[in-house]
Amino acid sequence: MIERIAILGTGLLGTSAGLALRAAGFRGAITGWNRGAEGGQAALAMGAVDAVAADALEAARESQVVLLTVPIYATLDWMEQLSGELGPEHLVTDVGSTKAQITAAAGRLFNTRERAAFLPGHPMAGKERGGAALGDANLFRGAVWLFTDDPTWERSPHSAALAQGWREWVGAMGSKTLDIDAARHDELVGWVSHLPQFVATALSALLEEEVGDAPELKDVGGRALREMTRLGASPYSMWRDIAYTNTEAVQTALHALEQRLAHLRENLRTPALRDEFEQANRFRRE
Amino acid sequence: MIERIAILGTGLLGTSAGLALRAAGFRGAITGWNRGAEGGQAALAMGAVDAVAADALEAARESQVVLLTVPIYATLDWMEQLSGELGPEHLVTDVGSTKAQITAAAGRLFNTRERAAFLPGHPMAGKERGGAALGDANLFRGAVWLFTDDPTWERSPHSAALAQGWREWVGAMGSKTLDIDAARHDELVGWVSHLPQFVATALSALLEEEVGDAPELKDVGGRALREMTRLGASPYSMWRDIAYTNTEAVQTALHALEQRLAHLRENLRTPALRDEFEQANRFRRE
Repeated sequence: MIERIAILGTGLLGTSAGLALRAAGFRGAITGWNRGAEGGQAALAMGAVDAVAADALEAARESQVVLLTVPIYATLDWMEQLSGELGPEHLVTDVGSTKAQITAAAGRLFNTRERAAFLPGHPMAGKERGGAALGDANLFRGAVWLFTDDPTWERSPHSAALAQGWREWVGAMGSKTLDIDAARHDELVGWVSHLPQFVATALSALLEEEVGDAPELKDVGGRALREMTRLGASPYSMWRDIAYTNTEAVQTALHALEQRLAHLRENLRTPALRDEFEQANRFRRE
Repeated sequence: MIERIAILGTGLLGTSAGLALRAAGFRGAITGWNRGAEGGQAALAMGAVDAVAADALEAARESQVVLLTVPIYATLDWMEQLSGELGPEHLVTDVGSTKAQITAAAGRLFNTRERAAFLPGHPMAGKERGGAALGDANLFRGAVWLFTDDPTWERSPHSAALAQGWREWVGAMGSKTLDIDAARHDELVGWVSHLPQFVATALSALLEEEVGDAPELKDVGGRALREMTRLGASPYSMWRDIAYTNTEAVQTALHALEQRLAHLRENLRTPALRDEFEQANRFRRE
């Protein structure tokens, strides 16, 4: 039933979504739009989109489903613009990494019987570097795709059906969907996604200062070091919006880890070190 | 010229060394010994050793090269015992993760013209779980194998030739050898190896406390979380000795990271966050 999709933002996620939809058997039209022309042309060349639109609003109006694959503040900007342009025959959905502000805006700007539906989404998938060229039809395979739908929203039957249809395509792309409250989402990803990223950033930045002038010594760290710093390559441009829109949860998580590291540092020669390793082992039990 | 090797400790590293030596074309005898009988039998069944010795000292006396693949304090214990048993026709070498104490003991107990040689070594390779069953002929491929030889040691020509022969087998197993001062070694691995481990332990322990009661939520973190906590499975039994024998370097590194995380936490909404991401990006530049 979904036959026309517009992907606004053909970076890593937008391009991967186009490729994954095609791989899952989507035969309808996919129109891309990108702020920089190069990313749009790359997505087109890779077959992730059929056409690149010059006008994003026009592409949105001509589609049934608009997928916003841009950073969080850009998503909020598009929501403001699209709200007045689209009616109940449309669904807008997104991939933003924090959901409280986007879900609040979705309630304010969409999701009445007279307006387009907005289904707030967040695939737990990505790479440490962005861009259409890294687009991957399998990016979402095995990942959890979170939705922070509000059960009090009243959508038109048509847009509600589009939302259900989009959930089915997400499943077809290989993701497991999971519904969660928006506030709980932001708290949870503060622990399991944002904290690991900020730790990798701090560790990488620290090691650049301590051993960065002796690049051959990076080899010494081997696989463990590579894994623990891979996310150090993540771009500020994406994480700035996350830091701004989930500040409190990230601060809480960072502070808790600082205290945990201090505890470990003070107990390198006491039995408390054993407790800490055993607690960590439990997290990784199979 | 090396034709008889004894491997004391057929856990992950000892078993992998036996398998790697065979894969590299070593045709001589490999005798294993393990504190627990099960690990010895597993290494034998995998073809990592030809025989399992009941008496480690006898196996050492009958070999030319003794490879100690046990934790650090056990290595120091074996060094005390082997020193009086072996003469200049022997080489003892090890794989301990900290080198200051082992290298000091090597100078005190070995490395004269009348005694066996001791070549302190440290392959930067491992897995987050131990045991013979995980032994892997390719474990050392592409890894750096550090040596903290002291240039002032005077070895017998015979034992010096064995040390050179062992370096060649390390190369044949696929590792790149690198010589480094023992004190500098411990400082360096404090940053690039021990710090990442203790961070993964603290992060895993913290997350077990925060989200461990909702195991399905671990899936939410995806690849990034799995990577950042993989080392959380590492055993206390190995890391205790590292914490005890490199305490100061690990404390320095942990304290520096605590400060770095606090700085990041205080600057989630300031331009200093950009500086931190850019510094981290530099560490991961390709």
